[in-house]
Amino acid sequence: MSALHAEVQHFYARQMRYLDEGAVAEWAGTFVEDGVFAANGHPAPFRGRDEIEAGARKAAQALAAQGIRRRHWLGMIEVAEQPDGTIRADSYALIIATPAGGQAAVQMSTSCSDVLVRRDGGFLVAERQVCRDDIADRPAEQ
Amino acid sequence: MSALHAEVQHFYARQMRYLDEGAVAEWAGTFVEDGVFAANGHPAPFRGRDEIEAGARKAAQALAAQGIRRRHWLGMIEVAEQPDGTIRADSYALIIATPAGGQAAVQMSTSCSDVLVRRDGGFLVAERQVCRDDIADRPAEQ
Amino acid sequence: MSALHAEVQHFYARQMRYLDEGAVAEWAGTFVEDGVFAANGHPAPFRGRDEIEAGARKAAQALAAQGIRRRHWLGMIEVAEQPDGTIRADSYALIIATPAGGQAAVQMSTSCSDVLVRRDGGFLVAERQVCRDDIADRPAEQ
Repeated sequence: MSALHAEVQHFYARQMRYLDEGAVAEWAGTFVEDGVFAANGHPAPFRGRDEIEAGARKAAQALAAQGIRRRHWLGMIEVAEQPDGTIRADSYALIIATPAGGQAAVQMSTSCSDVLVRRDGGFLVAERQVCRDDIADRPAEQ
Repeated sequence: MSALHAEVQHFYARQMRYLDEGAVAEWAGTFVEDGVFAANGHPAPFRGRDEIEAGARKAAQALAAQGIRRRHWLGMIEVAEQPDGTIRADSYALIIATPAGGQAAVQMSTSCSDVLVRRDGGFLVAERQVCRDDIADRPAEQ
Repeated sequence: MSALHAEVQHFYARQMRYLDEGAVAEWAGTFVEDGVFAANGHPAPFRGRDEIEAGARKAAQALAAQGIRRRHWLGMIEVAEQPDGTIRADSYALIIATPAGGQAAVQMSTSCSDVLVRRDGGFLVAERQVCRDDIADRPAEQ
């Protein structure tokens, strides 16, 4: 378990850095081809890398236009190998936003539940569900 | 050391999730039967699982009444095996609070010193001392 | 990789605790003798332990005078062994500040790139470069 825990942390560090740096194709490539990204703040899940990449690009462009740098912190991670060989990873995710020349602040607090699969010595996300803490408790419907 | 470090992180992820989800009996069960929870913000330490559970229930009910979701982040963890077989774990702990429909923010920054004991392949907290950063430096008296 | 990841986390926990506790000589001792600490918020890098210690002392005194407790959180860590035997470690770093009797808040969000060397079973920082998120993207010039 302890090796897996460190590996998943390392994967998340890389994955979220892609997102925060606007490397949206690389970000989408951390999901399986038909991966699902659901969030209780989105009207519908993104399905597949193309939708995931398009969603990230739109968000990155909006942030760039506002001059905001965003950092995703994932922490408090629990991992569990599943009988089918996938890995369930539950984490807290915090978004920190800093406007150019301005004050950094917590933008949002969420929880994140992933189904990870092993691929080429690393991981890919098969399913992700993000729940914003400011929205009601129910998980986003898929 | 590195395996221990990951194991303790994993334990904290589970433990704090119990607290943040209001699973107060499970939370109390992460302490030894006569565990001590001291905090420089409390008038007296909680002693034993019953007091620890009662304290957590009261806090959970107050938060629920206010519609606030709370997340405890423990990080910057140092662990050290002690000669008596216990584990000393020092961490920083951050509380993030989000009101329903509102803005997430840092509620409190603290440091946390634990004495952990191994039990059934995992850990239990024997003693915890939490020091709020907004209160003077001296540790809470036990 | 997973053992290295945990070891680096542990090193950072110790290192930043030195800084946050005002143990400035111990903090400087976590760098190699001729270590470099560069930051895009500083006019020039600190070079060598004496400069690093002096810089930390000045900051610690200013905070003490204001009654502010500061916590450095490093997370989202990526580590990579380099061909020359050094370790490249990239992280996000968050500074949380709490005034005595006041409200904790995010003070600053940064990213941190380190070159670490192994020494006596642990690590020392050979080069650190910190980039504040509120300042332009270019790394500090060395």
